Amino acid sequence: MRIQLQPKMVHADASNFADGLTKEQAYQQVLDQAEGLFYGQRNWVCNLSNAASLLWHAYKALPSPSNRVNWAGFYTLDPLSSPTSPSLILAPFQGKVACQTIPFGRGVCGAAAATAQTQLVTDVDAFPGHIACDSESKSEIVVPIVVGGEKRRVVGVIDVDCAEKNGFDETDRVWLEKLAELIANGCDWPF
Amino acid sequence: MRIQLQPKMVHADASNFADGLTKEQAYQQVLDQAEGLFYGQRNWVCNLSNAASLLWHAYKALPSPSNRVNWAGFYTLDPLSSPTSPSLILAPFQGKVACQTIPFGRGVCGAAAATAQTQLVTDVDAFPGHIACDSESKSEIVVPIVVGGEKRRVVGVIDVDCAEKNGFDETDRVWLEKLAELIANGCDWPF
Repeated sequence: MRIQLQPKMVHADASNFADGLTKEQAYQQVLDQAEGLFYGQRNWVCNLSNAASLLWHAYKALPSPSNRVNWAGFYTLDPLSSPTSPSLILAPFQGKVACQTIPFGRGVCGAAAATAQTQLVTDVDAFPGHIACDSESKSEIVVPIVVGGEKRRVVGVIDVDCAEKNGFDETDRVWLEKLAELIANGCDWPF
Repeated sequence: MRIQLQPKMVHADASNFADGLTKEQAYQQVLDQAEGLFYGQRNWVCNLSNAASLLWHAYKALPSPSNRVNWAGFYTLDPLSSPTSPSLILAPFQGKVACQTIPFGRGVCGAAAATAQTQLVTDVDAFPGHIACDSESKSEIVVPIVVGGEKRRVVGVIDVDCAEKNGFDETDRVWLEKLAELIANGCDWPF
């Protein structure tokens, strides 16, 4: 099901997800709306801000465990960190206040950034070095945002936390990796 | 009542506002927590992301009409807009997807940016040129973020929408202007 942007719809309607959507349909709406919003707009702060809103409202419209998502947003490369010891820094999100900087390699976000591989963690308490920004978070998925052709580099990660264990599965991985690719190609990255 | 940051508290706790706070107490907590979070961290995207979260959760803890706030966040100077015809661009927020760019002078946000004066609008439908990102929004307050000494300039605005008319009053103005000053001085602005 593709949901088309209506010429006269106000922007907030993009965050309205119908009841009864499957997870695939909700993610498809996120992708379609993100694609529409990114059209002609490559500012990364603007686009990540709207993408975090789309994700948050998609999860809230789905049944458990997806509606138990308690944080959805982004970390990006900290421009003040050194290339030999890079860190992530907090970027737009929806949810409660979060940790500000995360060294590559530390915790779930740091692992995704260091390896450029999605981290799907069914139980964060069992993940070595997990950073507990919020003790309510029980599971997490982090998807790297990778740009570049020959010289690929991680510019950030999509990070989603859930207040239940096993909050994410392979469907989340597949669709969030599609979103990461759309974001990677749809923004100008200054770092 | 000043609420101190506890050394071991996880960051998410900063977004937890007790029941029964007055609006002044909730804003005081926002300011205290923002000051703590900004300490040693001047990245504007990081700081605005956390500030939007603090504001959102403060409003949700308050009685009506404050808890009917349906959007809280920021617009900043669009670095791609020309100095002679500046625009705002969407920055971190909590709430539904929002309009991406707003020319200085257009709508409530544009008026605040162009005049460097807070706009407290009790009924957005009566405001000339109001931009309806969300038809649910009925009242709005927009506070300019102004930096610089002799050569003062607007780098962005705090924007809060409410789903009820008369959602904001002079208390909101006073406290949001304090927050705008803290943000102006607490971040490095690249534009």
